Amino acid sequence: MTGIDPRISQTRAAVGEAVRALLVDEGWDAVTHQRVAERSGVGRNTVYRHFPDRLALLAHGGNFVDDGHHAPITGDVRADLAAELRCFRRELFDGVVGTVIAAIFERADRDPEVAPLRDRLVEMGAGQTFDLVRRGMTDGLIDPDRDVADVVASLCGPVLYARFCQGRRPTDEAIDRIVDSQLRPG
Amino acid sequence: MTGIDPRISQTRAAVGEAVRALLVDEGWDAVTHQRVAERSGVGRNTVYRHFPDRLALLAHGGNFVDDGHHAPITGDVRADLAAELRCFRRELFDGVVGTVIAAIFERADRDPEVAPLRDRLVEMGAGQTFDLVRRGMTDGLIDPDRDVADVVASLCGPVLYARFCQGRRPTDEAIDRIVDSQLRPG
Repeated sequence: MTGIDPRISQTRAAVGEAVRALLVDEGWDAVTHQRVAERSGVGRNTVYRHFPDRLALLAHGGNFVDDGHHAPITGDVRADLAAELRCFRRELFDGVVGTVIAAIFERADRDPEVAPLRDRLVEMGAGQTFDLVRRGMTDGLIDPDRDVADVVASLCGPVLYARFCQGRRPTDEAIDRIVDSQLRPG
Repeated sequence: MTGIDPRISQTRAAVGEAVRALLVDEGWDAVTHQRVAERSGVGRNTVYRHFPDRLALLAHGGNFVDDGHHAPITGDVRADLAAELRCFRRELFDGVVGTVIAAIFERADRDPEVAPLRDRLVEMGAGQTFDLVRRGMTDGLIDPDRDVADVVASLCGPVLYARFCQGRRPTDEAIDRIVDSQLRPG
């Protein structure tokens, strides 16, 4: 077994960076093989070889986005949920993820090919929150009769709303309150 | 004083309808004076006269969206909040509002002209929820030391998240739980 050719991972990283930059600067319609090639400095044929269609390009751009940005698990579900929501806040407010997400939301409604990409991104983004909520239910911290997806929506939704509707970063205290509102009293 | 010429309100209604249809079917870039004129059957010069630039077109399309879709106020803050969240759910899931909102979120990040349009839409959409939360604080139902905007985000955010991230309509029971999670215990 040989390792992955470092030139290939460089190429893929440069393409992912270019996809995100184009999405942020000019929006979805700018993400074409031609423009990605120009922006990344990677040859157009090479871009096509690695990413045969636009959706592959966008999926690749999205994948980079969420690369390892989760909070470490300590076992204290309450603290771990708050730490994970702080990561979500950072992703949404400090980088390009918010813009990429908005572009995907907008497109997912009218392009059935984009819906699976959205689902994959959400799974990557919220998977750890799901697991923590399930653990909270096992531990008795969260009402086990509730629907897990509803609890996840009540945790992540306020941060999403603050980003897109209010343009206003939730404080650490606000995040602690969001977590506590989903825990059983006591 | 004479009333508004009914032909003018017909024209404006037709233009608003065309803006929303174009946004939903083809996205933001399709909302041009030319395309709106074609789609609405209103003359291009007339469209320009009423809406001198694209932002005016989009603002008009957005304004129609939220026209009178609020729940009636009964004075029971808990019930009124739940009714208002059900209206928000209907707007997001049953009509074109969700798609229009996603287009505006996506564009607001990179177009400073769109940010005020987003703010106006959010104010129209969430204004009644704000008022109800303030009343709940006066009545002792909601902790008055909390930030009103944070409470609004915790009420509307889960519905927004369910729409855009989960593609999953919250049940009536889920909405009641969202409201209760923001009320003081007891």
